[in-house]
Amino acid sequence: MDLPHLLVTLILIFVGAKVLGEFANRIGQPTVLGELVAGVLLGVGGLKLVDPHANVFVLLADIGVIILLFETGLATDVRELLEVGWRSLAVAAVGVILPFVGGFVFALAFGYTNLIAIFLGATLTATSVGITVRVLSDLGKLGTKEAKIILGAAVADDIIGLIILAVIRDLGMRGEVSALKTAQIATLAVGFFIAAIVVGNVFAKRLVKIIEKARTSGTLIVASIAFAFLWSLGAELAGSAAIVGSFAAGLALGRTHKFDVIARELKPVAYIFTPIFFVKIGADVDVRYFNPFNEANHAILVVGGSLFVVAIVGKVLSGLVVFDKRVNSTAVGIGMAPRGEVGLIFAEVGRRAGIVTADLFAAVVVVMALTTFIAPPLLKLSMVRRPRGMSLWAWFFEPARKRVSSLIWGR
Amino acid sequence: MDLPHLLVTLILIFVGAKVLGEFANRIGQPTVLGELVAGVLLGVGGLKLVDPHANVFVLLADIGVIILLFETGLATDVRELLEVGWRSLAVAAVGVILPFVGGFVFALAFGYTNLIAIFLGATLTATSVGITVRVLSDLGKLGTKEAKIILGAAVADDIIGLIILAVIRDLGMRGEVSALKTAQIATLAVGFFIAAIVVGNVFAKRLVKIIEKARTSGTLIVASIAFAFLWSLGAELAGSAAIVGSFAAGLALGRTHKFDVIARELKPVAYIFTPIFFVKIGADVDVRYFNPFNEANHAILVVGGSLFVVAIVGKVLSGLVVFDKRVNSTAVGIGMAPRGEVGLIFAEVGRRAGIVTADLFAAVVVVMALTTFIAPPLLKLSMVRRPRGMSLWAWFFEPARKRVSSLIWGR
Repeated sequence: MDLPHLLVTLILIFVGAKVLGEFANRIGQPTVLGELVAGVLLGVGGLKLVDPHANVFVLLADIGVIILLFETGLATDVRELLEVGWRSLAVAAVGVILPFVGGFVFALAFGYTNLIAIFLGATLTATSVGITVRVLSDLGKLGTKEAKIILGAAVADDIIGLIILAVIRDLGMRGEVSALKTAQIATLAVGFFIAAIVVGNVFAKRLVKIIEKARTSGTLIVASIAFAFLWSLGAELAGSAAIVGSFAAGLALGRTHKFDVIARELKPVAYIFTPIFFVKIGADVDVRYFNPFNEANHAILVVGGSLFVVAIVGKVLSGLVVFDKRVNSTAVGIGMAPRGEVGLIFAEVGRRAGIVTADLFAAVVVVMALTTFIAPPLLKLSMVRRPRGMSLWAWFFEPARKRVSSLIWGR
Repeated sequence: MDLPHLLVTLILIFVGAKVLGEFANRIGQPTVLGELVAGVLLGVGGLKLVDPHANVFVLLADIGVIILLFETGLATDVRELLEVGWRSLAVAAVGVILPFVGGFVFALAFGYTNLIAIFLGATLTATSVGITVRVLSDLGKLGTKEAKIILGAAVADDIIGLIILAVIRDLGMRGEVSALKTAQIATLAVGFFIAAIVVGNVFAKRLVKIIEKARTSGTLIVASIAFAFLWSLGAELAGSAAIVGSFAAGLALGRTHKFDVIARELKPVAYIFTPIFFVKIGADVDVRYFNPFNEANHAILVVGGSLFVVAIVGKVLSGLVVFDKRVNSTAVGIGMAPRGEVGLIFAEVGRRAGIVTADLFAAVVVVMALTTFIAPPLLKLSMVRRPRGMSLWAWFFEPARKRVSSLIWGR
């Protein structure tokens, strides 16, 4: 890619994300929904003005979600996260088992082979923590107990997802699963997250002390982002996901006394980078599959639609294991529903391994897209209280008044 | 490039730039000198840890200098720039003619062909406005009259440079120069800058009005950067340089009543992106050519060293045309001296066109590097007053107390 192409891509992303994000906000929807739609309009399924597979675009989107999770980690209290820890783990576990079993049984019933059934089940287990976090912050609900449980469960799901990914990669390439390798990956991924938080805490405090002595300007924000990148890199190298690392880095820096300055200076950087990620997800969605007038799509839509029901029901039921009357368990379940980019990565592995045909792949992409796009309005329905006397219609489409920033950073 | 490589590159750039920038600041030198040295250590002439030709790195560096010039434009008063306009143009013109003639005569004296002599002269005409701006802001001198003259002259030089570039490209490819094409490029480049400021003014005011109605957060900074990118793109398409466009965009937005909010939110973004640009320039410098113990380098060092003298003297003399006793004309001349990335682009065109041999190219690279690295300390010597009774040594290496940010934005 050359400079003019990069500039065109970034201008389209920024303008599209802002205009449609603003529109979504005006009709009372989470802003991120507009950014996703902007991606659909600009990407492969729309005007084809941005190429979601261009190397630079992919990398900038990756940096975008790394910064988003870093920002989220900064605003998250580790103790509150640990308080709901067991509940998060239970939600994550059930939210993996139910969609997997549901997808597996469903696929067998449709006459697919065992291998395909395992793959379909596996792709339904993912949760896109990026989407969930943005919707919660758009709704001003990032400080609630439900959000903490979802956040913990989504991070756990990201780690579980990596283990499942390794398993289906093995299955696809060699037709069998290596228990030793799976155990190795599982240990590394879980171990990294714990080590990252423990080591991060010590390291972050020392880093801030050193930075305070700096005489050049911009040292705090540059060093903080370098720290987040270092942890992301460590996560990648340990076989975990980069966002798990940057979330851990955020948690660590969030416990230093400079957390508020870092959060304030990080905000404009996040404003620039995060829309790139959400537009990229939208740009990957090929809406042509949704055209019901094309007969070739009927099978895709039937299979995709049914899998979608399994995908949503499986995650919504996972919220029930919270077992706490003060917690809105439906909201927790819905918060786990968006599959986003994680689901797409799973689908891609299955396609490259030759497990799924192009048709089935398309159906899976349909499921990923539907769960991603339905989560923002459903989360609003389940989490934002409707004022007495206001009609459902008026409330649902009434402009959301609470702004993201004041609620993320106003702790 | 994949994500782990990008993360490694960015971590090295951020840490290297910050550590050596801090060190430069502690020994009383402009911070940017440390960032350039960090690039040399990490790049082709050093540890080879970052590849200055990697596509993503090049693009991020381009974005870095675009944002730097946008930031500079925001902090620059158009009227003050116009006030010194004629003097800037005179400095730019003399600063192009003297080094060109000097380089040409010198090359003929060394026995080179006419074509090579023209090329050598042309490469000496460039000024890297990016380096100059950063040094001035590191010294806290961006608000001075000298800085305004340098800024105007450097932008004019950038436009003149593009015309010269077109000429040497013609010469290299076809052995002759098309007067029509040159006139066309000159008209477009000059016309674009004027149009960009005029249209930008109207457009910027409307843009800010629309943004004020936005309900989603981050709209101002995202829209401002999109505006800067749009102007950069326009400049590129009009045959001008992207940084000329972003500087014009900054001038336009600097006249709106939101200029201070934009500048404040742009700061962390600039802290992240600008070091990438300076480290990239340093990473391009191959210090092995400077090794005097390698006999193969002797010819390169002699030719390069002599051209370096021509390059510096030519630009320093250009400052004399300011004809104003209240203006430090030596400082103006030195401010025009760094060739930086612009010189490297010229040299590259000459090499690709087959005008220069590898040896001569190396000599030119030596000149570009020397002018770039000597400008920061020389500018300090000429612009920062030495307190009475303080030794030259103590003053030169005494930590610079004035910080960049408070002086750029404290207007």
